[in-house]
Amino acid sequence: MSRYEDFQDFRAKLNDKILSRGTKTTKRFFTLDGNAYEPGALDAKTKELLGLSASMVLRCDDCIAYHIDQAVQAGASDEELFEVFDIALIVGGSIVIPHMRRGVEFLEECRSMG
Amino acid sequence: MSRYEDFQDFRAKLNDKILSRGTKTTKRFFTLDGNAYEPGALDAKTKELLGLSASMVLRCDDCIAYHIDQAVQAGASDEELFEVFDIALIVGGSIVIPHMRRGVEFLEECRSMG
Amino acid sequence: MSRYEDFQDFRAKLNDKILSRGTKTTKRFFTLDGNAYEPGALDAKTKELLGLSASMVLRCDDCIAYHIDQAVQAGASDEELFEVFDIALIVGGSIVIPHMRRGVEFLEECRSMG
Amino acid sequence: MSRYEDFQDFRAKLNDKILSRGTKTTKRFFTLDGNAYEPGALDAKTKELLGLSASMVLRCDDCIAYHIDQAVQAGASDEELFEVFDIALIVGGSIVIPHMRRGVEFLEECRSMG
Amino acid sequence: MSRYEDFQDFRAKLNDKILSRGTKTTKRFFTLDGNAYEPGALDAKTKELLGLSASMVLRCDDCIAYHIDQAVQAGASDEELFEVFDIALIVGGSIVIPHMRRGVEFLEECRSMG
Amino acid sequence: MSRYEDFQDFRAKLNDKILSRGTKTTKRFFTLDGNAYEPGALDAKTKELLGLSASMVLRCDDCIAYHIDQAVQAGASDEELFEVFDIALIVGGSIVIPHMRRGVEFLEECRSMG
Repeated sequence: MSRYEDFQDFRAKLNDKILSRGTKTTKRFFTLDGNAYEPGALDAKTKELLGLSASMVLRCDDCIAYHIDQAVQAGASDEELFEVFDIALIVGGSIVIPHMRRGVEFLEECRSMG
Repeated sequence: MSRYEDFQDFRAKLNDKILSRGTKTTKRFFTLDGNAYEPGALDAKTKELLGLSASMVLRCDDCIAYHIDQAVQAGASDEELFEVFDIALIVGGSIVIPHMRRGVEFLEECRSMG
Repeated sequence: MSRYEDFQDFRAKLNDKILSRGTKTTKRFFTLDGNAYEPGALDAKTKELLGLSASMVLRCDDCIAYHIDQAVQAGASDEELFEVFDIALIVGGSIVIPHMRRGVEFLEECRSMG
Repeated sequence: MSRYEDFQDFRAKLNDKILSRGTKTTKRFFTLDGNAYEPGALDAKTKELLGLSASMVLRCDDCIAYHIDQAVQAGASDEELFEVFDIALIVGGSIVIPHMRRGVEFLEECRSMG
Repeated sequence: MSRYEDFQDFRAKLNDKILSRGTKTTKRFFTLDGNAYEPGALDAKTKELLGLSASMVLRCDDCIAYHIDQAVQAGASDEELFEVFDIALIVGGSIVIPHMRRGVEFLEECRSMG
Repeated sequence: MSRYEDFQDFRAKLNDKILSRGTKTTKRFFTLDGNAYEPGALDAKTKELLGLSASMVLRCDDCIAYHIDQAVQAGASDEELFEVFDIALIVGGSIVIPHMRRGVEFLEECRSMG
């Protein structure tokens, strides 16, 4: 199984457990988390890129993978994604690099799933 | 070998190396780290939950696993643990979610070891 | 005006602005943030202490002040609060110390307001 | 002097010192930091919003103030800025709130300078 | 009163309170924190620079001020300190810049106290 | 394949992709990142130790592995490296421990490659 499939699989399985066993506040947070990326004054692609830049400087590989996948589905080009990687690198420094490496690899896998 | 056994195994093996080769300050820190969770004005279970909430917002999977295991041994219920997850999620945001997923999976493994 | 009053004042004034001008998701997040500390399997005091330990390791002075104030109102003793400071210090290291200093000063001010 | 003027003043004065006394690598980093926000596949406003979202989750008040100012100059509306605040809040959690408060106050000052 | 004096004053006053009222673990941690910077395989100056680089990437202004002061007392030159600032900037990114600004200002004050 | 080889391999392969596909700013950042560790007022070994202490408190395993490897090549002894681990532990707290464990294991592998 590819990293892409592994990631989607584990994510779906555990989200189900959290949504059935978690507190009401946790469940509502999951709903808000989804709502935050719906188009408004900013379009959906821009919002995914904002989530990606935040996730990269916080160095959360699963969050990075998720937002790359969503940004690709919202029509982001590789050029746009590499400019987001660039800003995250400048803001967050060289410790972002290992996460950028895994992000670039994951992006290639997303493109190959299309 | 399960994740639970892997984790305990690696932890024990490397702690031994650190305690035999590390500085005197490092060894004393390890002792203090143990002392901090002994019951005082707050009981042992509450202290483990405090360590868990701190570990979750700092997003340290091994620390989360350790404090879940200790909290379970100190008698914490799943309801109590999910309320700790909830506070960590609200304080630390959606980047806590991947760690909550692995924490929930680890909790199930802890319960099944009992 | 004391730091305590300054803090409460600025917090109230800007929360009003955020709640009148922010997105629907932001407003709902503020509600969830309040709900997370309501008593459940864990009582209100324990929940405030969990929020305090998380805020200390994330080194957010305003969050620390807020949870100290709430914990005091929920009946936390100084002994309990210093044990929370202790765990935050061990988990988060010496960079927590400057925030512990300001927390101890704020705690004294909270007690003197009573 | 307003917070806006204080901030610009101190920033300019110390940047001058760093650029005259810092290492060659530091100076080149300052240049790169400027280059990263120039329009490319993404326009300048979007890049400032990406820098803002990264700065908010890393909770750097001066960085937040800087990117709000730049985003306003690049034509960002309040609606767009509040949606960035929203994503930063969801990704980074309640510890982002104190920085959002100061960001909202700074935004009002930026608008009043116009 | 200068920032240097303010800082030393508040630090001394609150450390006294913490050492008289804190837990035994907290007091021992303060002792360890002092011990860690005593010369060993590495000399005292190098250890202060290591503490400074760690404090800069964690963006703790008081910790940065403290280690600059100690490093100056241990004989560090401005050239050495600016190379530490440089590494912290590359590792930690542009969010380190506001702390570098305040560090440079504090360094000038330390030199003028000599 | 050992963790050492895996790490070097993946690092080289993805750095190539980033350097061929990344933005000009990203490429320049990679150059600066290399330059920052060249000897100046501080020698190469000290600079690697500074990078290591920063990487440990930021808890970046790949960065820790990289700087351990470079420090070993620049002549750092185990005693020196354990004193860096010690300072990182005191500054960053118990959440550094899991990274110290993996760092100690990696150091042993580096020594066995020699």
